Amino acid sequence: MADQEQAVLKKLRVEPGEKIRLRDRNPRDKSLFGDEQETKAATAALAKDIDTLQDRLYAEGARALLVILQGTDTSGKDGTIRSVFNATGPLGVSVHAFGPPSRLELEHDYLWRVHAAAPRRGTIGIFNRSHYEDVLIGKVHKLAPEKVVEQRYDQINAFEKMLAENGTTILKFMLHISKDEQKERLQERLDDPAKHWKFNPGDLEDREHWDEYQDAYEIMLNRCSTKWAPWHIIPADRKWVRNAAIATIVKATLEEMDPQYPEVSWKPGDFKIT
Amino acid sequence: MADQEQAVLKKLRVEPGEKIRLRDRNPRDKSLFGDEQETKAATAALAKDIDTLQDRLYAEGARALLVILQGTDTSGKDGTIRSVFNATGPLGVSVHAFGPPSRLELEHDYLWRVHAAAPRRGTIGIFNRSHYEDVLIGKVHKLAPEKVVEQRYDQINAFEKMLAENGTTILKFMLHISKDEQKERLQERLDDPAKHWKFNPGDLEDREHWDEYQDAYEIMLNRCSTKWAPWHIIPADRKWVRNAAIATIVKATLEEMDPQYPEVSWKPGDFKIT
Repeated sequence: MADQEQAVLKKLRVEPGEKIRLRDRNPRDKSLFGDEQETKAATAALAKDIDTLQDRLYAEGARALLVILQGTDTSGKDGTIRSVFNATGPLGVSVHAFGPPSRLELEHDYLWRVHAAAPRRGTIGIFNRSHYEDVLIGKVHKLAPEKVVEQRYDQINAFEKMLAENGTTILKFMLHISKDEQKERLQERLDDPAKHWKFNPGDLEDREHWDEYQDAYEIMLNRCSTKWAPWHIIPADRKWVRNAAIATIVKATLEEMDPQYPEVSWKPGDFKIT
Repeated sequence: MADQEQAVLKKLRVEPGEKIRLRDRNPRDKSLFGDEQETKAATAALAKDIDTLQDRLYAEGARALLVILQGTDTSGKDGTIRSVFNATGPLGVSVHAFGPPSRLELEHDYLWRVHAAAPRRGTIGIFNRSHYEDVLIGKVHKLAPEKVVEQRYDQINAFEKMLAENGTTILKFMLHISKDEQKERLQERLDDPAKHWKFNPGDLEDREHWDEYQDAYEIMLNRCSTKWAPWHIIPADRKWVRNAAIATIVKATLEEMDPQYPEVSWKPGDFKIT
């Protein structure tokens, strides 16, 4: 693994058992990367590398990569997907956005709909929000009794371990933005008529619970960063830093997976096409 | 609609009730487009227009576009998706490839798995193969009794009509390649070790049924091109012509759909972000 990749992982990955404090992480940090324009160009190159590696993953057809994106409103989940995965395109990459559960989904356990959306072998699946909402909004807004939420951390770890043991590599990214940055981004949605449809008055209510959400994120990061499904805390106030960090980690991970073109059981000379 | 768009539609769309003969359609035809390099540049621009229109479709959140790709092996279904939809990316575009039905799928009617994969409102869904396999391979290889296959054309028309009436615009593209072109493309897969994994000895068996398949395609085109879900016969021997034709039709269709940013029920002044 290249030095830069190691530096990014060392700084952003939450090691299993490590106790992090979210307030110690600076959402505006850009120290991992150099010049903005050069970094953007490097990210575009990484996106192409990811495309090539995804081709091999597809050809191999045996394993999957699951990318989980979490973060408060306006933290840039959609923008990340565009920047890191548009070069790969919709062939072999699927995005699943988790909103409030439907009535049918509520009639099952909270992991039911998540499991159903797990990526097929050979593909990259992206979760825009995920089962972690059940220990975030679920905890902050007390959508389930405390004891029930408490059990979920271990349940999630076990669920993700099962996925990993069955061929799905998992990467989890928390897009960490500051309260000031969110204010700016929400204000933009109010100021720009083309962005009005993105503004949801309910986001303001969630903003009032900012500190509780930060606490819930911190618990989640400390309890659910595992060897088989590590969390990364991404400084996301600067979009170019966010994109560069995630592209670096995704590319390094696919490279470690090292998918192989499958052996074929025939020789080209076996066939004559008439 | 621009003149060029009208010319493409007039030449490639199968009008309801029209009786086409597939052998009258030249898979190498390039008369709709001019210079190759200019056409490629125009296609890239169309792909960006499609991205912009898809954003509006997503914002509107009320309707979907379903793109159905059919064609023999090597006809370029994957290549089409890359060329026309990579600018849009996986956010808002989902691809569903239909292979041989699973055991669970066989325990249901043939449209069951297709309906389950229909695109969500606000998105573009792409079917790489589809329920039309049930009147193609199903007919040629007699996977179902003749009488059963015979009923399917009307069933499919009714199914697609229901989707259309419920907000899904449908475009169907038959990627029409010549037998010679297929020979070249299969040979490439044998000659290039990096393409070996794409070569499926079973494709050769299907190639022996070339004429029967062409007949089955012709029946499908004549019986299932409807006002609400038209077929287009795409000259696909030349990849750049294929991509240009499909990008033109997709873009014109999205423009006709004319998705709108939704009205919001508030005024920017209603909120103060603290």
